[in-house]
Amino acid sequence: SSPYKIAVLAGDGIGPEVMAQARHVLAKISEKFGPSFEFTEQLVGGAAIDAVGKALPAETLAACEASDAILFGSVGGPKWETLPPNEQPERGALLPLRKHFGLFANLRPSICYPSLTHASPVKEELIAGGFDVLCVRELTGGLYFGQPKFRGEKDGEMTAIDTMIYKKSEIVRIAHVAFKAAQGRRKQLTSIDKANVLENGILWRATVEEVAKDYPDVKLSHLYVDNAAMQLIKQPRSFDVVLCENLFGDILSDEMAMITGSLGMLASASLGQAKGDGLYFGLFEPSGGSAPDIAGKGIANPIAQILSTALLLRFSLGLEKEAAAIEAAVRKVIDDGLRTGDIYSGAEGTRKVNTAEIGSAIVAAI
Amino acid sequence: SSPYKIAVLAGDGIGPEVMAQARHVLAKISEKFGPSFEFTEQLVGGAAIDAVGKALPAETLAACEASDAILFGSVGGPKWETLPPNEQPERGALLPLRKHFGLFANLRPSICYPSLTHASPVKEELIAGGFDVLCVRELTGGLYFGQPKFRGEKDGEMTAIDTMIYKKSEIVRIAHVAFKAAQGRRKQLTSIDKANVLENGILWRATVEEVAKDYPDVKLSHLYVDNAAMQLIKQPRSFDVVLCENLFGDILSDEMAMITGSLGMLASASLGQAKGDGLYFGLFEPSGGSAPDIAGKGIANPIAQILSTALLLRFSLGLEKEAAAIEAAVRKVIDDGLRTGDIYSGAEGTRKVNTAEIGSAIVAAI
Ligand SMILES: CC(C)[C@H](C(=O)O)[C@@H](O)C(=O)O
Ligand SMILES: CC(C)[C@H](C(=O)O)[C@@H](O)C(=O)O
Repeated sequence: SSPYKIAVLAGDGIGPEVMAQARHVLAKISEKFGPSFEFTEQLVGGAAIDAVGKALPAETLAACEASDAILFGSVGGPKWETLPPNEQPERGALLPLRKHFGLFANLRPSICYPSLTHASPVKEELIAGGFDVLCVRELTGGLYFGQPKFRGEKDGEMTAIDTMIYKKSEIVRIAHVAFKAAQGRRKQLTSIDKANVLENGILWRATVEEVAKDYPDVKLSHLYVDNAAMQLIKQPRSFDVVLCENLFGDILSDEMAMITGSLGMLASASLGQAKGDGLYFGLFEPSGGSAPDIAGKGIANPIAQILSTALLLRFSLGLEKEAAAIEAAVRKVIDDGLRTGDIYSGAEGTRKVNTAEIGSAIVAAI
Repeated sequence: SSPYKIAVLAGDGIGPEVMAQARHVLAKISEKFGPSFEFTEQLVGGAAIDAVGKALPAETLAACEASDAILFGSVGGPKWETLPPNEQPERGALLPLRKHFGLFANLRPSICYPSLTHASPVKEELIAGGFDVLCVRELTGGLYFGQPKFRGEKDGEMTAIDTMIYKKSEIVRIAHVAFKAAQGRRKQLTSIDKANVLENGILWRATVEEVAKDYPDVKLSHLYVDNAAMQLIKQPRSFDVVLCENLFGDILSDEMAMITGSLGMLASASLGQAKGDGLYFGLFEPSGGSAPDIAGKGIANPIAQILSTALLLRFSLGLEKEAAAIEAAVRKVIDDGLRTGDIYSGAEGTRKVNTAEIGSAIVAAI
């Protein structure tokens, strides 16, 4: 059969070094399970700005279009922070990619492994045993892309306007994603809104209630976003799937990621509409950033990139067995006590390793 | 001199019982320092809905108008949760009060006392010694009141629209409040925005930079709201004053409050424009909610209400000495080991007390 086509956009900071480990993992997957991959490496973010003057060059976009999925590293760094917001690596690359490919469903698992609770900023007694929350964030609607967007003189004064707008169908489709995910997990869905202030919140809540009728096995509850920001800290273990509109998802998924304490382990998937074959075009990237402070030192945790690769295999290529094998290998290596610096505590039975070492251990465990 | 006029809106849940303690404190202030107060007790929230069918009756509003300040308890509870959002106690009372009186500046101190770090959900090593962050939230702009607000058919489909809008002058006035507050504290201001996505964020950041020129002694930095949601958990002690637009302030101030671990101790002030005499009309309320689960049991922590009363004396009446006396009395009682259930850990030298007992102890300590 013809090879799966993957666009590889390593980007800036630690992107290239953690991507290298993901590539080793994919090579091992080919070797062990048979599927063949065709990679096209493309410029993105600050690296692309430096090389060709744009965070998302046309060639990169074309390569993504010709691929089955995008494996994304990370973009951004101090070097490009003074550019106009529109041209900066993060906004200039990620937002157009989401919009262009209609990647409306952002899945961000926040997993705190039982053996890594020490890394969490939250007290041990609140997270003992670890936790596993999935944030489902709507990614192409709301304040991010809503029109009008304006900044300029209005009634004789500088004024800024952003528009939070959702059509019911946009809420319906992301709600289905969240309910389906909950069905495959602990069957609890917490929907976040600000229905006590926003018209969007009222429509969001009513629509999610309606979609819930198709999923009688899932327990649905609602939280205001301000209360959610509190409860996630106080009782992360009580959540299963959390469903958010775009901006709330931006804030809460980062908050949850911080609560796990191991940002370097968190993957994400940004998916478009399911295709006929039940697969999705998608962009897969670590939740953490480009970490310029440790870039180039070979000490970054590549697990987020490797787990993002597993999500790519699952959602875009339908290679469930292969995805599961990667996830199992990651768990084994953690159980074996290997730790990059970000999750190393010096605990007995653990060993501090670098990017390449933990990558090789994961490859070996597959 | 004529007495200071205070509108007392105790509201629902624990409101009345904690308000009773605040009244005892004010009585002691009169006795000890001389100022006399004239109170008008008014219905608000669920209590008002039950009595006269509206969360904010005209009579209550009129009484507030005739007063120097509003001492607010808390509103809401399960009984009124099924009402249309517009009519619910929180939205139906708080939003119109803010709008009517132009209360654009919300000050929420998030204080974690050194002796109460056990109550925080955050690990001891991150908060040892306690912390003291002041959130300055813009309270009458942004998505809360921006027009258009719409929910209905649009292009053949149910659609919701909320508008985030800020005029530069609205940002300027709240920025001044935040910089002035920082000058009286540790001279660090962190301004929150989403300048990488929102036009409002770009205008916010540029305007705050401009206002900063008037305060060369204050160190200004900027954080994206998603990053702020992370850093507040990881390093709450590194913040001094945090400046937010309305919705971000709603989310982050609640998050910060949770991080202190002692919601029952947190006061807030919502202020209008400074008057000629340098005083402010304002609404003063605990940051926590009406806590219906413990209402009527006499065990709620009245400290948030009592500290809100201190803020009222300071900002609306100019009674700085009296405000400071209340704050000192609260600290003394905490140092003496008195604890309501919410902050009691059984630690040596501490004693569990009820609402009235801790209230009396504070009165005695003034
Ligand atoms: C970089 C930024 C535009 C982006 C967002 O706000 O969506 C990022 O924070 C994210 O969550 O992927
Ligand atoms: C009740 C609600 C309208 C209100 C708000 O969102 O401002 C509350 O959460 C607050 O922070 O005072």
